[in-house]
Amino acid sequence: MTPTTDRSFITAAAQLGPIARNEPRAAVVARLCGLMRCAHEQGARVVVFPELALTTFFPRWFMEDAAEFDPWFETAMPNPVVQPLFDLGRDLNIAFHLGYAEKTSDGRYFNTAIFVEGGQVTGKYRKIHLPGHADHQTWRPCQHLEKRYFEKGDLGFPVFDGAGGKLGMCICNDRRWPETWRMLGLGGAEMVMLGYNTPLHYPPAPEHDHLQYFHNELSLQAGAYQNGMWVIAAAKAGREEGCDLIGGSCIVAPTGEILARAATVADEVITARVDLDRCAEIRRNVFDFAQHRQPGDYGLLTRTEG
Amino acid sequence: MTPTTDRSFITAAAQLGPIARNEPRAAVVARLCGLMRCAHEQGARVVVFPELALTTFFPRWFMEDAAEFDPWFETAMPNPVVQPLFDLGRDLNIAFHLGYAEKTSDGRYFNTAIFVEGGQVTGKYRKIHLPGHADHQTWRPCQHLEKRYFEKGDLGFPVFDGAGGKLGMCICNDRRWPETWRMLGLGGAEMVMLGYNTPLHYPPAPEHDHLQYFHNELSLQAGAYQNGMWVIAAAKAGREEGCDLIGGSCIVAPTGEILARAATVADEVITARVDLDRCAEIRRNVFDFAQHRQPGDYGLLTRTEG
Repeated sequence: MTPTTDRSFITAAAQLGPIARNEPRAAVVARLCGLMRCAHEQGARVVVFPELALTTFFPRWFMEDAAEFDPWFETAMPNPVVQPLFDLGRDLNIAFHLGYAEKTSDGRYFNTAIFVEGGQVTGKYRKIHLPGHADHQTWRPCQHLEKRYFEKGDLGFPVFDGAGGKLGMCICNDRRWPETWRMLGLGGAEMVMLGYNTPLHYPPAPEHDHLQYFHNELSLQAGAYQNGMWVIAAAKAGREEGCDLIGGSCIVAPTGEILARAATVADEVITARVDLDRCAEIRRNVFDFAQHRQPGDYGLLTRTEG
Repeated sequence: MTPTTDRSFITAAAQLGPIARNEPRAAVVARLCGLMRCAHEQGARVVVFPELALTTFFPRWFMEDAAEFDPWFETAMPNPVVQPLFDLGRDLNIAFHLGYAEKTSDGRYFNTAIFVEGGQVTGKYRKIHLPGHADHQTWRPCQHLEKRYFEKGDLGFPVFDGAGGKLGMCICNDRRWPETWRMLGLGGAEMVMLGYNTPLHYPPAPEHDHLQYFHNELSLQAGAYQNGMWVIAAAKAGREEGCDLIGGSCIVAPTGEILARAATVADEVITARVDLDRCAEIRRNVFDFAQHRQPGDYGLLTRTEG
C-alpha cells in the first residue's frame, strides 16, 4: 500500500442501541464484536464505538456508596471481559475507538475514551466538559450526574499518531464547545472520533427537545468545517432504562458535509471513505491558522478568573 | 413600554444587491434609506446593513496609489453624503448598523462597522479577521485584497449597550471563526450584527463553491447556538462588476434556528422578532459558561508564537 492510499480508508461509526442495567459486560462485548465484524464486511479499517460503550448510562441514577457505583467502572483496559474485542480488532486488522468509565489505580474516576490499534492502546482521552450536575435533583425524570461520578479529564486534548494520520478524541458534551475542536485542530488532528449518550429530553429547557438532533449535527459540522477535520461520531441510542437517547451517528467531512448518518436508534454500522489528505482543502485556505487566526485578540478565551 | 417588551422588538436585515463601481455614494444612500423605510413599514426598530455598504467591493481590484484607493474610504462618519441616513434613522426611531471603509485622521485604514442609535454612533468595530491576500494574484478572476487595503482592527471585540440590551458586531470573514463569537459571548453580547461581501467563487478551492451558502449558515448558526445570541446577518449580493456575491441574509435565534432568510440576490428586507430574554434559554443551561467552560485547558487558543 502506498503512503497516499494509506491516508484514504473506510471508517465506521458503530452506533449502539440501549444497554440494559442488568446486561452483562460480556454480552455487550459480544454486540461490539458483531458490529466490528459488520464494519469489517464493509471494508472498514477504523471503527468508532460510543461513550460509555460497555454499560448502560449509569449517571442517570443517584448513588452514594462507592460499593454501588464502582462496579460501573473498569480498573484495567483491556481486561478479561473486553479482551475478545481487542483480539478481534487485531485479527481483522481494524483499529477502534472505545468509551468506558475508568477507575485508576489511585482511585480516580474518569469518563474515558481510548484508541486501540494493533491490539495496543495508542491513544487516550478523559472527558473535560462534563455536563449535568453533582447533586440529586429529584425533579428530573432522569438524573445526569456526570459531575458527580467523574473528575474533569487531566490529559488535555491529545493528538496522536494513528490510522496513518493525526487523530484526536472528544466525548459527548465536549462536541458542543468550539474550544474542543480548536484545541484538536491546533494540535494538528485530521480525524476526531467521539461517542455520545445524549438524552432526547433536556429537563432544564424541554422547549428545545425537538432540536437535539439539529444541535448535535450543528456542533459536529461546525467543528469539522472550522478546523478542516474529519469527524466520526457514534451514539448510544434508543430507549434505555426509560430514558430516550438520540441516535444520529454520523461521519462528517472536513467541509462540514455529512457523508453518512444512522437511520435507527438501535445497533447500526455506518461507513464512509475518509481521505485525510482532504483536510488541506480547508486548512490551507479559509482556515489557514497561521495566516488568518489572531490569537493576540482572543485574551478572554483563556481567562480563568472573573 | 415596559422593560420586558423593550427587550422584544422587530429587527431587519437589509440586504443590498450589487453596487456599481461608478454608482455615486448619494445614490447608494438613497437605496439604504429606501430599505430603512421598508424595514420601518414592517415595524423594525433595528436595521442591519452589509459590510462596505456605501460602495462596490473595491478590494477586488489591485491599486497601488493612495490617490486611487483613498476615494473608497470615509474620513468622517457621518459625513454630508451619509447624513440623510442618520437623519432618517432618527426620524423613524430606527437604530442601524452600517459597514464602510474608514480612513482615520492619522492615515490608518480599516474595514469598519458602526451602530447608530438616536442619530449618534454608539458602537464601533474594526474587522479583525481580514481574509484574502496583500499581493496582486493575477491568476484570480477577482482579487480579494483586504489584507492590502485594511489594517487589522484595533478595537478588540467590543460589547456595548444598545436596543435595550448588549450588542456586538463582527464583519464577514470574522463569522467563520468561533473565536469571534466566543469573545462576543464572553463579553455578554445578546445580539450580534454583521455584514458580508462573500464571493460565490473561491479561487483557491473552487471545488467548494457550491458550499458557500451552507458554510455561511453553518458559521452563523453555530455562533448563535454556542453562545446563546441572536445573529442578524446582511449580505451584499448579486453580480457586482463581474463578480457573483452570495445572498442568504438571515436572522438566527439563540437556538441556532434560522427565523428569516433572504430569497433574492438583490435589495431585500427581511425581519424577525428578536427577544433578548431568550438568550438565557441557552446561556443558563447547556452553555452556562461559568459552570461548564474549562479555560484552564484552552492554553493553545491564545498562544501567539510558533
